[in-house]
Amino acid sequence: MTAPFDLPADHPFGPHHLPYGAVSPQEGGDVRLAVRLGDHVIDLRGAAAGTEWAAVLSRPTLNAFLEAGPTTWGAVRAWLQTMIADEEGQAELRRHLHPLGTMTTHLPLEVRDYVDFYASEHHASNVGRIFRPDGEALTPNWKHLPIGYHGRSSTVVVSGTDIVRPTGQRKGKDDPAPVFGPSTRLDIEAELAFVVGGSTHVGSRVDVDTAEDHLFGVALLNDWSARDLQAWEYVPLGPFLGKSFATSIAAWITPMAALERARVPLPVQDPEPLPYLRGSGRALFGLDITMEVHLGDAVVSRPPYRTMYWSPTQMLAHLTVNGASVRSGDIFASGTVSGPESQTRGSLLELTWSGARPLRLPDGTTRTFLQDGDTVTITASAPGPDGTTVGLAEVRGTVRPAA
Amino acid sequence: MTAPFDLPADHPFGPHHLPYGAVSPQEGGDVRLAVRLGDHVIDLRGAAAGTEWAAVLSRPTLNAFLEAGPTTWGAVRAWLQTMIADEEGQAELRRHLHPLGTMTTHLPLEVRDYVDFYASEHHASNVGRIFRPDGEALTPNWKHLPIGYHGRSSTVVVSGTDIVRPTGQRKGKDDPAPVFGPSTRLDIEAELAFVVGGSTHVGSRVDVDTAEDHLFGVALLNDWSARDLQAWEYVPLGPFLGKSFATSIAAWITPMAALERARVPLPVQDPEPLPYLRGSGRALFGLDITMEVHLGDAVVSRPPYRTMYWSPTQMLAHLTVNGASVRSGDIFASGTVSGPESQTRGSLLELTWSGARPLRLPDGTTRTFLQDGDTVTITASAPGPDGTTVGLAEVRGTVRPAA
Repeated sequence: MTAPFDLPADHPFGPHHLPYGAVSPQEGGDVRLAVRLGDHVIDLRGAAAGTEWAAVLSRPTLNAFLEAGPTTWGAVRAWLQTMIADEEGQAELRRHLHPLGTMTTHLPLEVRDYVDFYASEHHASNVGRIFRPDGEALTPNWKHLPIGYHGRSSTVVVSGTDIVRPTGQRKGKDDPAPVFGPSTRLDIEAELAFVVGGSTHVGSRVDVDTAEDHLFGVALLNDWSARDLQAWEYVPLGPFLGKSFATSIAAWITPMAALERARVPLPVQDPEPLPYLRGSGRALFGLDITMEVHLGDAVVSRPPYRTMYWSPTQMLAHLTVNGASVRSGDIFASGTVSGPESQTRGSLLELTWSGARPLRLPDGTTRTFLQDGDTVTITASAPGPDGTTVGLAEVRGTVRPAA
Repeated sequence: MTAPFDLPADHPFGPHHLPYGAVSPQEGGDVRLAVRLGDHVIDLRGAAAGTEWAAVLSRPTLNAFLEAGPTTWGAVRAWLQTMIADEEGQAELRRHLHPLGTMTTHLPLEVRDYVDFYASEHHASNVGRIFRPDGEALTPNWKHLPIGYHGRSSTVVVSGTDIVRPTGQRKGKDDPAPVFGPSTRLDIEAELAFVVGGSTHVGSRVDVDTAEDHLFGVALLNDWSARDLQAWEYVPLGPFLGKSFATSIAAWITPMAALERARVPLPVQDPEPLPYLRGSGRALFGLDITMEVHLGDAVVSRPPYRTMYWSPTQMLAHLTVNGASVRSGDIFASGTVSGPESQTRGSLLELTWSGARPLRLPDGTTRTFLQDGDTVTITASAPGPDGTTVGLAEVRGTVRPAA
């Protein structure tokens, strides 16, 4: 086995990255935590045995490690990077290395509450123009608070899981009554998920300035959406069945520590948000992550995360300002990432302007919304330290026919 | 200690009821599962030791028992009722009996996904008239599907937990910009929660006709609501911070089996719902549960659950028709229970018509929305077998000042 200790410096999964996941041998065996290094995984249950982190790294999910908090996250990362850089460490790690291709990946955390925000001004404006062509593109609240809602945690699935086309009610504007059947407007939403660690108590808040203590890492997320189901159901209580059938998340969680060089200032926030969304001002940041949305082999969009309006620290501060507690294993997603240009939009709804402008694919076919058999893959990269690149693990799913 | 084996036949917690909860001795000790009998609890970890149910009844939460499914639920109930009726059984149970007053009650389940429906036609109509006085009272979808949304599971708290007044953004129609502060329109919603058992797979459905296999029991629920936060945030993605700060649930879960005599036909559903919401028609039912909402010592409302439009089996079938999975420990609530008469409305929003008609309390004070220090208690009763009454365990909370 070629060990991954001499990766080229530009490898997207080099020692500057070290995302966390959960794997089991394809030939059978327990699920255990791992970090990815190049095209290998380091079995953390084995590698951390005997260390002070053995208890939290020997579980099948990240939840206990997430609960341990930022000091532990930093210590484990430093320990791994030291081991990887050192000959004796390499000799030890070699015993716990497995080629990625021999392992099955699993959802690496037990998802507690899942919240989905709506933090792209371009996305929200596009949706507003499509659904309310005669009104204001943004609702009056949009620039005052990060709008969000709770999603279904039981249907967060790991990348690679097939997506069964959902069935439900829809009602076209000329239909006299709702009709029942498989969704005819199945869509994607390219998003970034933030994984939360460190539980808080009901009645307390997480401030903007301390929010980073609860931000463990990020993962690409595809918030599959049935636009026809959603349109009929969502007034007045918001999206429900149009979203709850499946949400795909990448198998590998990139630690925030790997994204230090990807931090960028936020777009200007005008009007200035209320003080609880500003804090000292030092904890507000965007991320220079460029996503690619692949439909089959074709790249159909390149959403730029750096254009997002709200900082993840603002999203977490808002989520808890009313006293709502967080738990390790919570995830909150950014909402669809769409940039200002048409080819940077993160949903087919926007890319095809609600179906009015079909996409033309390299194989000569066209798409408005997804067909059975379509595979959607979202990838992304961000600048890493010393000229390296951090390649976020892909999130991928293939649409299967309705049951 | 007086044993509870000779309760009067009309005791609301007699052997025909046997709700499940989780308790620990007030002097200290582990949390264990229990059933309530009169003003005593039977420690199930002790009582079930050595039985075939020991594994699922020796946990601190009901989740494993919920996962065991309806055959086990029925067998444990039959075993308990036999033991309670029998001298030898009583002798055995006496060793595991504790006065309720010596125990602390805990949230008896690890809540997975929490969904809140909107199943009262009277409530939805009242809210429609209050918020959209010039429009139709009901949205066009209301009679075609049980409208619902996902709530926050981390803030579901057990009865008796104090409720900290939430803080957040609100914007009155004359405010030039949103203001920040403690909610000034803190409300209740009197609801019934259904506790789900038996997990399903993503991509599968629970039909109306088999939904009862997943309905373990019910509990009173108070969906505390900050109307000012909610009004400003909820368009377009639904309620979020206006609800997510706390949801109180009773400490004792009444098994569906105790409510056989409480089943009543649904109100007429016109228009007829789509076939997936009808099934064979035999699995649709309402529940003759009469609730009482107490503000301090005053009963301010008596919401009748029998007036609810949608059957719990329809709610579960709808929730899963798109392939969404359920897990043991999911709860779904009915939405505010409001009857047709003004004194049967389940929220202060409706009882005071958005504050326009303050409630006059026996102590001479008035209320539009809740004041700090107010205690809200919801109780309920339903017909049991042989002329008995099933008294649902109360859900209670006291409002504390904003942090």
